[in-house]
Amino acid sequence: MTTANRQITLAHRPEGQLAQSCFSRSDDNPAPTPGEGEALGKVEWLSIDPTIRMWMAMDTYLPAIEIGAPIRSAGLVRVVESDNPALAVGTLVFATPGWQEYAIVTERDQVVPEGVDPTAALSIFGITGITAYFGLLDIGRPTEGETVVVSGAAGSTGSIVGQIAKIKGCRVVGIAGSDDKCSWLTNELGFDAAINYRSENVAAKLRETCPDGIDVYFDNVGGDILEAAIGHLALRGRVVMCGAISQYNDSAPSPGPRNLSALISKRGRMEGFIVLDYLKRSGEAIQDLATWLAEGRLTFTVDVMEGLDSAPDALMKLFDGGNTGKMMVRL
Amino acid sequence: MTTANRQITLAHRPEGQLAQSCFSRSDDNPAPTPGEGEALGKVEWLSIDPTIRMWMAMDTYLPAIEIGAPIRSAGLVRVVESDNPALAVGTLVFATPGWQEYAIVTERDQVVPEGVDPTAALSIFGITGITAYFGLLDIGRPTEGETVVVSGAAGSTGSIVGQIAKIKGCRVVGIAGSDDKCSWLTNELGFDAAINYRSENVAAKLRETCPDGIDVYFDNVGGDILEAAIGHLALRGRVVMCGAISQYNDSAPSPGPRNLSALISKRGRMEGFIVLDYLKRSGEAIQDLATWLAEGRLTFTVDVMEGLDSAPDALMKLFDGGNTGKMMVRL
Repeated sequence: MTTANRQITLAHRPEGQLAQSCFSRSDDNPAPTPGEGEALGKVEWLSIDPTIRMWMAMDTYLPAIEIGAPIRSAGLVRVVESDNPALAVGTLVFATPGWQEYAIVTERDQVVPEGVDPTAALSIFGITGITAYFGLLDIGRPTEGETVVVSGAAGSTGSIVGQIAKIKGCRVVGIAGSDDKCSWLTNELGFDAAINYRSENVAAKLRETCPDGIDVYFDNVGGDILEAAIGHLALRGRVVMCGAISQYNDSAPSPGPRNLSALISKRGRMEGFIVLDYLKRSGEAIQDLATWLAEGRLTFTVDVMEGLDSAPDALMKLFDGGNTGKMMVRL
Repeated sequence: MTTANRQITLAHRPEGQLAQSCFSRSDDNPAPTPGEGEALGKVEWLSIDPTIRMWMAMDTYLPAIEIGAPIRSAGLVRVVESDNPALAVGTLVFATPGWQEYAIVTERDQVVPEGVDPTAALSIFGITGITAYFGLLDIGRPTEGETVVVSGAAGSTGSIVGQIAKIKGCRVVGIAGSDDKCSWLTNELGFDAAINYRSENVAAKLRETCPDGIDVYFDNVGGDILEAAIGHLALRGRVVMCGAISQYNDSAPSPGPRNLSALISKRGRMEGFIVLDYLKRSGEAIQDLATWLAEGRLTFTVDVMEGLDSAPDALMKLFDGGNTGKMMVRL
C-alpha cells in the first residue's frame, strides 16, 4: 500500500510579488521510495527562508526549482522507515525535504541531537544561526570597539548578528521596519541604537548613530539602505552581502548603489557568501551559540505557522516584514 | 631676489566634462621658501593621472584642491637649493609638486636613483606600476591558470596589470576602446584576447573569451563594463576596484551595477584600494618590475606632452581615451 504524500509544488515562476497562484497543491503523490542506505522520513517542520523566492524564480547557487516539483525548503524530518542503523527509526534529521509530508533522508543530512528543541534546531542552531555566525565573524571580521550596522535587524538572522556583535564588544546599530521592532532591539537585545527605515532618514541617522563611520555593515536588504551604508563606511569598512530581500520581488533588476566608487577611497570590501559553504564548520558555530544561549547572552525568537498548507502564506509574510523571528511551519 | 613661479591653479570645481575654464594660469607667484630640513626643487616632470579630476571636484581620500591653489599632481623635482645633505642639489625626487615650476621637497619624498629614466620613474616604477602590482597581486590575488580581465587595458595601469597577470601564468583578457589598442594588447603585450567596448557587446564577448568565468576583474572604468564583468564572475571571483574613469566626468552620480547581488551567489569579493597605502612597500614592487623589465617580459609606454601649459590638455586627453600609455608633461 502506498502512503499518500501531500505536496505544495511550483505552479509557475513568480514575477513581481509572490502570490498564491505560484503554488499548486496535490494529494495524490505517493511517498518517495528510499534507495540503498537511505531512509523515509515524515516532515515535521519546514524552515521558511527568503532564498526560497530565489529558487522559485531562477538558477542561482542552486538550480531553479522545476515547475511541478515541491517547493525546495530545509526542514526537520523524523525517520519512519529505515534499514540504515545510522538513520534509525525515530531519529530527527535536519534535511531539505521540500514542501511535502514525506521525504528521503540520507547520511549527508544532519542528525539533531536528542533534547534539542526543534525550533532551536531550525533557527539558532540551523541556517539562521550559522549564517549569522560565519557571515559576521568570517566575512565581516569585526574587532572589539568597532561599529557594526545590520539591516533586517529584527529578522531571524539580523537579530542574531547584532547580538553576536555585542558579545564581541562592538557598538551595534540595527535597521528595522517599525518602532516596535526598534524598541525590541534596543530594550531587549541590547543594541546601542536602532533606526526605523520606514519613518526615518537612514543616511542621516547612520551619521548620527555611527559618528566614526561603519566598520562592518551586514546587509540583509540591498537597495537604498545598502547605498546609505556604503556612503557612511569607515576606512577599511566591510560590507557583508547576505541577502537583498528588498529586491527579490522586483520583476526587473534595480540599479545598484550610485556610490560604489566610495569603496575605492574608503579601501572598502564588499563580499558575498552562501551559508552552504560553512555547513561543514557548523560545529564551531553551534558550540559558541549554545554557550552564549546557556549564559543568557543570546535570545532567539520564532514565528510558527501550523500545517503544510500555511507554507505559502508563511513565505509571503517574510516579504511584507510581518514576521517576528525565524519563520517556520509545523506539520 | 625672488624667483618667479608659474602656476596652473584651480579656477572652479569641474561639473561634467573638464574644460579649460576650470584652470587659471599665473606668473606672478614667488617660488616657495623651504622650511627647516626642506629643499627647493625645480619641477621637471608632472604625472597626469585621472585621480586629479577627483581632487579638483571634492574631498576624497585626500581633501579637495582649494580654489586658487595649484592643481595637485605627482611629479619629478630636481633639488636646486638645499641645506639638507639627504636632499643634495641635483638630486631628482619623486614628490607631489603640483602644477607649478618650483616646489618644496622633503625627506618624505622619494629619491630617484641615478641612471633611472625619468619616464620609467613616473610610470612603471611610479604610481602606475605600483598600483598595477599591488592592486592585482595583493587585492586580486590571481593564481596560475586563473582568468584575469582588465578594463582600461591599453591605459598605463591596465597594460601593466595584464602583463603581470601573464607573467603569473594567468589567461588575460583586456577591454579597450579601439581596434588598434586591442591589436596592440594581443600582438605586442601577449594578452590572450581583447574586447573593443565601443564596437562589441562586452557581456557577450566576456562569455566567449572567458568560458570558465572571470576569476579577477581589475576595474579601471566602472559603469556598464563593471556590470558586465560582475555578471560573468566565476565562483569566488574578485573585483579589484582601482578607478571609475567612466564616471569621473558625470555631474550626477550614476546608478551602480544592477546585478550586485550576484556577489552573494558567486561568493564574490569587491575591494577598493588606494596606492598611497602601498608606497612604503614600493621596494617590493620595483624590484620585481625591474627584473621583469630587464628580462624583456614587461613593456611600458609613455605619452609625453611638452610644457607646463599643456597640463590641462594632457589631463583632458585621459578622459577621451586619446592617450597611449602613461600621460606625463615635461617642463
